[in-house]
Amino acid sequence: MAEHDESVRPKDGIPPASDAYARAGVDIAAGNAAVERYKAIVAGMRRPEQLDAIGGFGGLFALPGDPSRVLVASTDGVGTKILIAAELERDDGVGRDLVNHCVNDIIVMGARPLFFLDYLAVGKLDPDRAARIVEGCARACAAHDCALLGGETAEMPGLYAPGHYDLAGMIVGIVEREAIPDSRKVRPGDAIIGLPAVGLHTNGYSLARALIPREEWERPFGSGTFADALLAEHPSYFAAVDAIRTVARVHAMAHITGGGLLENVPRTLPEGVRAVFEQSRWEVPAIERELVRRGGLTHEERYRTLNMGIGYTLVVPLDDAPKALRAWPQAIVVGWIEEATDADAPRVIIHPVRGDDA
Amino acid sequence: MAEHDESVRPKDGIPPASDAYARAGVDIAAGNAAVERYKAIVAGMRRPEQLDAIGGFGGLFALPGDPSRVLVASTDGVGTKILIAAELERDDGVGRDLVNHCVNDIIVMGARPLFFLDYLAVGKLDPDRAARIVEGCARACAAHDCALLGGETAEMPGLYAPGHYDLAGMIVGIVEREAIPDSRKVRPGDAIIGLPAVGLHTNGYSLARALIPREEWERPFGSGTFADALLAEHPSYFAAVDAIRTVARVHAMAHITGGGLLENVPRTLPEGVRAVFEQSRWEVPAIERELVRRGGLTHEERYRTLNMGIGYTLVVPLDDAPKALRAWPQAIVVGWIEEATDADAPRVIIHPVRGDDA
Repeated sequence: MAEHDESVRPKDGIPPASDAYARAGVDIAAGNAAVERYKAIVAGMRRPEQLDAIGGFGGLFALPGDPSRVLVASTDGVGTKILIAAELERDDGVGRDLVNHCVNDIIVMGARPLFFLDYLAVGKLDPDRAARIVEGCARACAAHDCALLGGETAEMPGLYAPGHYDLAGMIVGIVEREAIPDSRKVRPGDAIIGLPAVGLHTNGYSLARALIPREEWERPFGSGTFADALLAEHPSYFAAVDAIRTVARVHAMAHITGGGLLENVPRTLPEGVRAVFEQSRWEVPAIERELVRRGGLTHEERYRTLNMGIGYTLVVPLDDAPKALRAWPQAIVVGWIEEATDADAPRVIIHPVRGDDA
Repeated sequence: MAEHDESVRPKDGIPPASDAYARAGVDIAAGNAAVERYKAIVAGMRRPEQLDAIGGFGGLFALPGDPSRVLVASTDGVGTKILIAAELERDDGVGRDLVNHCVNDIIVMGARPLFFLDYLAVGKLDPDRAARIVEGCARACAAHDCALLGGETAEMPGLYAPGHYDLAGMIVGIVEREAIPDSRKVRPGDAIIGLPAVGLHTNGYSLARALIPREEWERPFGSGTFADALLAEHPSYFAAVDAIRTVARVHAMAHITGGGLLENVPRTLPEGVRAVFEQSRWEVPAIERELVRRGGLTHEERYRTLNMGIGYTLVVPLDDAPKALRAWPQAIVVGWIEEATDADAPRVIIHPVRGDDA
């Protein structure tokens, strides 16, 4: 959010949007600053096996003994979605959220999972609850033929409140080096295929918790409750991506996490092109429309904080788009690659349905 | 601590030892219960590349394409040592603590590090502070020729207090399958070599924080302050173990972390033997003697909660012990392997210096 200086309009009956903005946005600016510091730190510390990371979705390390294959590793957490799950004791889903998130990160590099490790930190260890959480990880691992190779459960009174916990994980996958998408092949005119999001996935929960207070969580919303919508499982795009890559040339992909379409899509695009999305081509999940309404989020804020309905993108030559859509019927053409002659212009443009609404 | 029913004697001027006991001990019993649940969950979910883990210090996964080599993965956190570092803003050491801890876990299987990933979760992101923490990870990685391949920094207001953070990491290493220590070769009469601990390393901090309150941290203790002693860096035993394995046959090793000598040493011992330690053979760090005194910790409690001066153990044939000691002068013969005919008897016996004191 450091790139623009709009403020968000406060609305009656909800937290001031400036607060929501800060909660949802400041981490992105500070996060970008931290990332720049990290890059400087690790710049001089590389092993020869390390390959250039692609958009930062995971690290690449040549397979020992066989440089034609590459290990792909990524780590992530569930974010403050965990506070909703913990408060409502609906802990069985967070492990699936986490594993699916990690899987989606490494499939951006074309990898398939090998093994996963979990890190569970709790204020007060409840073995039954811990087992529910880890079982969620195990089931999602099994669904990807991924070994749950180990984990750590740490009881840390004083750092976590009783009943609170954090869950992070690390995944290692593998890919043939020549199967790693080569974004230099991306051309103006290519189609961008989107895979639908089911809700917030694992991003935007600080904003969501600011805009939807605890007392509303179990009230009706849509076909269930706010909690149901907020805890909807972060889907794995493994099967969809596998099906599409089988029939179509895919030159760049992105997992739409924190930073939204605006920050994640450019991470894997080459210089000289930009992505243009037509938001009329897909649905925004009801819970995200609700957050946009309550928070009065500007166009840029909503697309930088939330996935706004697209969880994963694939760039394919226009000729291959019909094959991709047949291979995965839920897939949608959501936009196009255009030439970008002005290096200072936005790398991503999203045409709203009409005017300013979601 | 579920195995015995002693209580700890409260002392004037310090928190009741029963509280200290619960803080230090309950996690171990609940942790063991959780581990049993985890084992049941993952029992039916294995990939063919997975090998039996050795004592649970890390997971083993045959290298794709070359089953003569094995990837070794482990994940861990810094524990509540982080609360002392965070409170005093002495954050530069926690990254080294974490990496060294992870390295020590995988060298138990004979592995050398390949790459590491960090997970940093903060209440409020301060890029400078985050960079200090990650820089500690990076420097410790570089010292082991280990790539810092990636990481995640998550800002999670509501889960972490402002100024608080948690730090976890995952390491992946590699070992020739035939170089993995084979504990079936352990024989009665073998020597146990210990590598000295410099302090608590990364375990026992909930107990330490209960017994040494915040207002004492910056008061003099030994040649520095309590904080200096409490934040002493978790050492890496990589160089020591490498030097010893070059000259001596090493059939079993253990990294002495949570659970102390009593729980960690048996993890890699075969049936039919036990470990007998002579505590007169090594020094207990002053900070641990202080905790024993303040908490009135029983013999069993101190050796199940703290490392009590031994950070890492190696079992070698008696003939090889002198070579090992020459290879690493700080190494000490701390005990022996004996035959254990009674399956219900303790797997570890520690003879105190005299009576009950540390």
